[in-house]
Amino acid sequence: MARHHRTAAILSIGDEITLGQKLDTNSKWLADQLTTLGITVSIKMTVPDDLAALAARFKELAETHDLVLSTGGLGPTADDLTRLALAKAIGDEVVEDAEALSQLLAWFDGVGRKMPEANRVQAMRPQSATCLSNAKGTAPGLHAVVDGADVFCMPGPPREMQPMFERFVVPVLRTDRVVLTRVLPTVGLGESAIADRLGELMDRDRNPLVGTTASASIVTCRIRYEGDDTAEGERRLDETVELVRGKIGDIVFADRDVPLAEVVLDRLRERRQTIATVESCTGGLVGEMLTEIPSSSDAYIGGWVTYTNAMKTSQVGVHPDVFEKHGAVSEECCRAMATGGRERSGSDYAISVTGIAGPGGGSAEKPVGTVWIGLASPSGVRAERFRFNGDREMIRQRSATAALAMLWKAIKEPRA
Amino acid sequence: MARHHRTAAILSIGDEITLGQKLDTNSKWLADQLTTLGITVSIKMTVPDDLAALAARFKELAETHDLVLSTGGLGPTADDLTRLALAKAIGDEVVEDAEALSQLLAWFDGVGRKMPEANRVQAMRPQSATCLSNAKGTAPGLHAVVDGADVFCMPGPPREMQPMFERFVVPVLRTDRVVLTRVLPTVGLGESAIADRLGELMDRDRNPLVGTTASASIVTCRIRYEGDDTAEGERRLDETVELVRGKIGDIVFADRDVPLAEVVLDRLRERRQTIATVESCTGGLVGEMLTEIPSSSDAYIGGWVTYTNAMKTSQVGVHPDVFEKHGAVSEECCRAMATGGRERSGSDYAISVTGIAGPGGGSAEKPVGTVWIGLASPSGVRAERFRFNGDREMIRQRSATAALAMLWKAIKEPRA
Repeated sequence: MARHHRTAAILSIGDEITLGQKLDTNSKWLADQLTTLGITVSIKMTVPDDLAALAARFKELAETHDLVLSTGGLGPTADDLTRLALAKAIGDEVVEDAEALSQLLAWFDGVGRKMPEANRVQAMRPQSATCLSNAKGTAPGLHAVVDGADVFCMPGPPREMQPMFERFVVPVLRTDRVVLTRVLPTVGLGESAIADRLGELMDRDRNPLVGTTASASIVTCRIRYEGDDTAEGERRLDETVELVRGKIGDIVFADRDVPLAEVVLDRLRERRQTIATVESCTGGLVGEMLTEIPSSSDAYIGGWVTYTNAMKTSQVGVHPDVFEKHGAVSEECCRAMATGGRERSGSDYAISVTGIAGPGGGSAEKPVGTVWIGLASPSGVRAERFRFNGDREMIRQRSATAALAMLWKAIKEPRA
Repeated sequence: MARHHRTAAILSIGDEITLGQKLDTNSKWLADQLTTLGITVSIKMTVPDDLAALAARFKELAETHDLVLSTGGLGPTADDLTRLALAKAIGDEVVEDAEALSQLLAWFDGVGRKMPEANRVQAMRPQSATCLSNAKGTAPGLHAVVDGADVFCMPGPPREMQPMFERFVVPVLRTDRVVLTRVLPTVGLGESAIADRLGELMDRDRNPLVGTTASASIVTCRIRYEGDDTAEGERRLDETVELVRGKIGDIVFADRDVPLAEVVLDRLRERRQTIATVESCTGGLVGEMLTEIPSSSDAYIGGWVTYTNAMKTSQVGVHPDVFEKHGAVSEECCRAMATGGRERSGSDYAISVTGIAGPGGGSAEKPVGTVWIGLASPSGVRAERFRFNGDREMIRQRSATAALAMLWKAIKEPRA
């Protein structure tokens, strides 16, 4: 058994993953858990149901890591080879585990069925391994020591694997390292512009380490301390967070991993104010993002998808002349949509979006990606022109995020 | 360059994946694509942003496979090491690619921004590699030959990676196996119910092989021929498609991989009819799904997000008594929403959704997952009660899909 568990490898087993039929969510979940525990996941591997290859990987990973966690391949069918592969990697015989067998029989008894003969193989284990009982299914897990590394084999279904990890793996993990992280989500600047601002704060050899990940228009700044002293780590994290905020504080909208829509709704709730939406090119996406957050109805009262000009006129009162004179994608139309939405819904704020998401509908003057975003508030109405890059989906995503960002900027300060 | 591409390895790069911060969906998508092309994915690996380890893996995988596909690590920041690692694996110098640089500058020009100096590194490539232009973002991909294997490095964001794979990787792939597939998307039945109907058509040793994959409420039936004769394959596929349609033809909504929303819009266009939406618990998701389809404005005129009762009354005329007597999640409210939406928008059809997406708001009589879906049409109004499982997001997704499915059933036959 490893004195300390510093490095870990995660092995996902099964044709359904290498054939691309199934998305592997177990390795993300396990990596997240191990990282939080201060154990570095230095590799994840996914291999098909092939006995020789599987045994070779168990051996290779055990030789190069303190901890190996596998998921999958513990079922009752012929292509479930994890038990045999582990035995082969150890050089063990496979034996039947009496305790596991009785638990298996009890499990089927519990669901009022006779155990199919095929399931009996699930009670088999390598001679030197121990079985880990499965509270949620038939497949017992396995624990063995291979080349001094702790190897745990767990079933594939997350609802069986996760409790097994918490009950049998976590208690035996020993780490002498402290890993602490902070997360600062931002909106309004791209990853490279943020990197320019952060400069040497992003040096790879810095501790805490500062990195960024981008998704649509949200760039999340991640700060990670790795060392052996929790107090020291927290102190350094606070210090680095301050330095980062000094560079990009104006675009940081939270101090944890949280959607922009949730921050906007929380702020509105604090201010006892409400928001309505009037969407054209985003077609309901802004409303969808807001209502994705539980109990959003405290602050979001609803809105309109005014996709045609007729709907813009009949539902939020955009005067037909506006389309004549300026077109539907114009500052005038955008302002009228926001104003009409605020008046007709009785909300404190209304955001409006009108633009050209493409692929068609663009012109030299108003190319695809041209989007007007408006905000009507107690202090008046304003609209801003954006030019987004990307395909239809990306333009819509960026437009909706920009709309939430415009509202966020208007309400981020406590109410006067 | 490999004579044939029989085996492939997929390499996912980035701390955000090994730290468990981000779920890797690229490797599933790529494995699915390669499998369909008749190429065997024998391993997937995920490694952190570590130059030496990364270079070693490129070399190891290139030595043991005909094709290596990597995703991630091509960004402009210091922790984007794929370019350097590939160069190290080849033993190449890194040089600036003039063409790639001009494309980068043009990209920033397109969004009306000056290129940050940090991005210049994205135009660098190993001497012997070629750059693959990125239509959806700043990071060019790379193609190099390492130990006779074709190595392609692509960016991490799926919407940049997928088109790059289709444009630059697929054309150079050479396989000596014939793999032909047909896809029949369905809505209305679960995977196991479909399996019951298909029976032995789903035998694992059948060729063409018949399988299903489920995503939200859409179950897609996939039929796959693998052999060496294209004509024979097409003949067998036609035969199997007929057999499958004989069993589940009533729920098949297309003969290719296409969103239900697109099928619904096409059918409405053929019938010269229009649709409006009135959404409560889905908060704009149905409108979002419809407007995701280009030129949806031909048939979708827009709608309302009547998230509060006040909006249901003021915007689509639901009488306040309805909330008193039956509540907002009721057949009466659902019917009134659809009727009001149809009348006020002047559309031929209006779909309405009102339900409890949770996590709060459930009761013994109306548990979380209770959703009413209504359809107002030229021939009257009807509403149906559903009970969906899953979390808030899943319930909303299933509700929106069920709403589109109800409309699809009403209009799938050519107009009388």
